[in-house]
Amino acid sequence: MHEFKLIQKYFTWDKPPRDVLTTVGDDAAVLDIPPNKQLVTSIDTLISGVHFPENTAPYAIGHKALAVNLSDLAAMGASPRWFTLALTLPEIDETWLEGFSAGLKALAQQHDCFLIGGDTTRGPLSISIQVMGVVDTGKALLRSGARAGDKIYVTGTLGDAAAGLQSILNNSNRNKNSSLENESVAFCQQRLNMPTARVVESNIIKHFASTCIDISDGLLQDLSHILEASDVGAELDLSQLPLSSALMTLFSSTTKGSQQAINFALTGGDDYELLFTIPASREMNFLGIVKGKAKVTCIGTITNAEQNIITDKDGNRLTSSGYNHFE
Amino acid sequence: MHEFKLIQKYFTWDKPPRDVLTTVGDDAAVLDIPPNKQLVTSIDTLISGVHFPENTAPYAIGHKALAVNLSDLAAMGASPRWFTLALTLPEIDETWLEGFSAGLKALAQQHDCFLIGGDTTRGPLSISIQVMGVVDTGKALLRSGARAGDKIYVTGTLGDAAAGLQSILNNSNRNKNSSLENESVAFCQQRLNMPTARVVESNIIKHFASTCIDISDGLLQDLSHILEASDVGAELDLSQLPLSSALMTLFSSTTKGSQQAINFALTGGDDYELLFTIPASREMNFLGIVKGKAKVTCIGTITNAEQNIITDKDGNRLTSSGYNHFE
Repeated sequence: MHEFKLIQKYFTWDKPPRDVLTTVGDDAAVLDIPPNKQLVTSIDTLISGVHFPENTAPYAIGHKALAVNLSDLAAMGASPRWFTLALTLPEIDETWLEGFSAGLKALAQQHDCFLIGGDTTRGPLSISIQVMGVVDTGKALLRSGARAGDKIYVTGTLGDAAAGLQSILNNSNRNKNSSLENESVAFCQQRLNMPTARVVESNIIKHFASTCIDISDGLLQDLSHILEASDVGAELDLSQLPLSSALMTLFSSTTKGSQQAINFALTGGDDYELLFTIPASREMNFLGIVKGKAKVTCIGTITNAEQNIITDKDGNRLTSSGYNHFE
Repeated sequence: MHEFKLIQKYFTWDKPPRDVLTTVGDDAAVLDIPPNKQLVTSIDTLISGVHFPENTAPYAIGHKALAVNLSDLAAMGASPRWFTLALTLPEIDETWLEGFSAGLKALAQQHDCFLIGGDTTRGPLSISIQVMGVVDTGKALLRSGARAGDKIYVTGTLGDAAAGLQSILNNSNRNKNSSLENESVAFCQQRLNMPTARVVESNIIKHFASTCIDISDGLLQDLSHILEASDVGAELDLSQLPLSSALMTLFSSTTKGSQQAINFALTGGDDYELLFTIPASREMNFLGIVKGKAKVTCIGTITNAEQNIITDKDGNRLTSSGYNHFE
């Protein structure tokens, strides 16, 4: 299949919105940026076997390739508008393309994020998406605004994706004792393969937060980026880490299992939840607005500790290699 | 080497310009678009063994990865401002990274095009660059503006890159008869590996042209994109095709060789020259301004022929499979 036909068949979904002046079919896309807005842009590449297991459903790959980029925009408090797709395929596999395209399209349409162009090449499977969004001038959520006393919050639940990856690597979705355990494994794998970009949550958080980042590499590692940029420390209340009932079902029956669940929550990547700080003075207002609209959990406080020191409430040092002070 | 260190060592060159508010080190880049400008953006992927021979010097790969994208902006009449780099590497090879980074940096600095972010992943070598530029609102050079009577122009010379690729595939840079032939082969390979994005030329052409495209797939194929978008035909004067003295040296000694040179010029890809149309009424003015500043050659005229019919001056049909009416 010729590249143009492939683009026409699988990647042409809607008429361009009014702010897209040219798209596929010219050398480049021409876009209108609204007045008093800044452009926010990020690119992420997914490689088969590195960023998703090789047998991942193409629908999920299409979803995840855009979701991880939307997550970066959410972490900046930006609204998604457009994206480009650089797709490298080993061969033209129409079944794969149908699934991939459907997953990508569903998420793009959900967030009114328009595919403005791209490049299709032959080679080992990889997907690079660059997403573009807009933010009110001067209002982007940076990593550098955290101050001692700010409350540390996360959206959603943590550690599910890491548990999902472990279950795939161990092929442990086969021999479960109960349907509850089977459902829990499926939930965690879904969290890994079909992450939710917290675009809706970001739209509330952006009005209150002093910093924001998305958790792609693990809570402790991503928190350390905020601490470095803001030159502060943090104290986490591990008892407050939001763990899903699926993760609890799979891991809470033994002490070792509980520790594993906490380690997943602290160091597991791929959750794509937002980690953000709220100045104490705005916290009540924030909680009033967010209630019923998004799940958020306070997990700690920014401290004056030496830059990038993270402790638990007992003063034990937490490092991105995980939580092992039980040992 | 950790990704952050790699970025710091090889891809952090200059302080950000004033219109770049955040860059590497936050979730996304935040950019100021000047008032009365539109954003123009394009993404191209280079795969080792597909878009460049596997033994290509890393300096040239770095250059070419950005050059092909700058060429897309030039074809739109846009000024380059920023780019992102999604780099997939099989391993951390510091010698390779030094060369790649140096080639990329030199071209980026030449055009004040600032690297605002990217993604580094492990996998088979591939490079995706998304370039962003700006154009005065409503002034982008599209493919759809050609009218019968417009003159068809190209920058530079055509066919060199195809001859360069052939010489590499045939390993024919070894046994040449003369130093002139050796120099000619080296010139053609340089044109393939280190293409010049016609940014300077675009800056003149944009004030006069009715359409513009860059020649990445071959003159006839890229011309056909203009003809389709503009619903017109074209007549080419093959005697006017600009051929380099290197191409002439290598191919003009026999009739078959001359035909091969013309075929390279008509159908060879990777030249990254600009192909554009100038309304007859503006031609004298254009030639007055461009003289001494850029090499441009009139190679034909837009006609009222049925859409997408290209002929030579004798009425012979030219198709993108090449020029073979001698046969």
